[in-house]
Amino acid sequence: MADNFLARLKAAAARNDSLLCVGLDPDPALMPIADVGDFNRAIIEATSDLVSCYKPNLAFYEALGDQGWLALRRTLAAIPSNVPVIVDAKRGDIGNTSAAYARAIFEVLGADAMTVNAYGGRDAVEPFLEYEDRGVFIWCRSSNPSAGDFQDLMADADGEKRPLWQSVALRAREWNEAGNVGIVVGATYPAQLKEARALCPDMPILVPGVGAQEGSLADAVQAGMDADQGGIIVSASRGVLYASRDADFALAARVAAQQLRDEINRHRRGIVARLEG
Amino acid sequence: MADNFLARLKAAAARNDSLLCVGLDPDPALMPIADVGDFNRAIIEATSDLVSCYKPNLAFYEALGDQGWLALRRTLAAIPSNVPVIVDAKRGDIGNTSAAYARAIFEVLGADAMTVNAYGGRDAVEPFLEYEDRGVFIWCRSSNPSAGDFQDLMADADGEKRPLWQSVALRAREWNEAGNVGIVVGATYPAQLKEARALCPDMPILVPGVGAQEGSLADAVQAGMDADQGGIIVSASRGVLYASRDADFALAARVAAQQLRDEINRHRRGIVARLEG
Repeated sequence: MADNFLARLKAAAARNDSLLCVGLDPDPALMPIADVGDFNRAIIEATSDLVSCYKPNLAFYEALGDQGWLALRRTLAAIPSNVPVIVDAKRGDIGNTSAAYARAIFEVLGADAMTVNAYGGRDAVEPFLEYEDRGVFIWCRSSNPSAGDFQDLMADADGEKRPLWQSVALRAREWNEAGNVGIVVGATYPAQLKEARALCPDMPILVPGVGAQEGSLADAVQAGMDADQGGIIVSASRGVLYASRDADFALAARVAAQQLRDEINRHRRGIVARLEG
Repeated sequence: MADNFLARLKAAAARNDSLLCVGLDPDPALMPIADVGDFNRAIIEATSDLVSCYKPNLAFYEALGDQGWLALRRTLAAIPSNVPVIVDAKRGDIGNTSAAYARAIFEVLGADAMTVNAYGGRDAVEPFLEYEDRGVFIWCRSSNPSAGDFQDLMADADGEKRPLWQSVALRAREWNEAGNVGIVVGATYPAQLKEARALCPDMPILVPGVGAQEGSLADAVQAGMDADQGGIIVSASRGVLYASRDADFALAARVAAQQLRDEINRHRRGIVARLEG
């Protein structure tokens, strides 16, 4: 792969004028056609000029058993080489196990980036970081209702008391020596997204939770974007994939993706504010 | 499956008089034969009367690509139905993704139990808990050198200040309404193992880190066992699997497993202490 992940991501974002990521989370109960590989290929062909990257979530492939593995392979093969792939896997374990997960996702699957769970601490994350040309997104603050159970516990670290997720974000910044680290912060809590941006001013933030999880797009974009009106990867899955559950699903996905891309662009460029102001 | 996971685990432990779990973590660089499925089947045939359960770690299969998935299927098929399987996966994500992981591991793979990362909080763990006849082991305190980076941060929870991993253990106890929850605490820190047992007196504790990671077996067993001299699952992988790297590997694995089983039994029954006393 030429360059590092961040350069590849920025190139795709610039080329397609987009901060949108489409999450490829196949759900046979919602798909209008039976074959996951065919479904994803149609979605990809309909949207690859509208996104900065794709994000297949491994859980949805693993749940399909033997066929899921094959569908994942076909999905990855269908993504144009100039559109980066973030494999959403939330992997993390002690060192030699993390090393095996890193091989699985970066080498076997050839992903450009992946999501990682840092609960094991630095040496559990290190095997992922060693792939300096890939992206490693540390799961900090999630978008689900119980996110705060542990992530918001006030904890003492480095002489200060702060929510656990902020300590995770600060460690992620520390680990970003090679410029290959990002963080994951859900769209449903814009206040946390703003704090995350302040803690990690120059790092990419993967922002799931727009669409089906009903995060406010305007709030998320304005809270999360960096000083250059970029730096976020706004991920939508169900709202794009299942925009129509009929034969026109690919066209409907294109329309939904284009609307989302354009809306994100209006919010980041302040056009909405100016029109309203 | 008859009964619940804990009943199946206890039955196997009683039948084989064993608290030993063999971790099936294939590493082609260390294996004396090339085929992972054949290797594991030989290990299983040589040890299935000496263990309370087996624990395949998914990372090591995923790292092998297409062949790994097949090898995992063959491995699971080779395990006798009266020996439970804990799939070590450390999965955890927001609700609908956790639900897909639960389907993958409990339904597609048919595992009796699995390890879970609870960083997402209660609703991220709920989809696993709903399988009441299976076991859900919450990763609390790991055995690696950086384990304390986050797990030992002192955090305020329920009006008390305690290390994060203890809050995770207390939540795991809360979540144990159906009697299907356990915790994972590494063998390398016996002090934490003792605290974990005090926090969760009646729950199974999966204890990795004996052997290659050089946790002290005596300390781990004495710190972790419950009031009935049981309740722990002592997991060893490399020390058993690669006891010999020649053609006699299966026999060597049997000898190593038997020694470990017997040593665990001596420590839990206090025979060592009495002989020494």
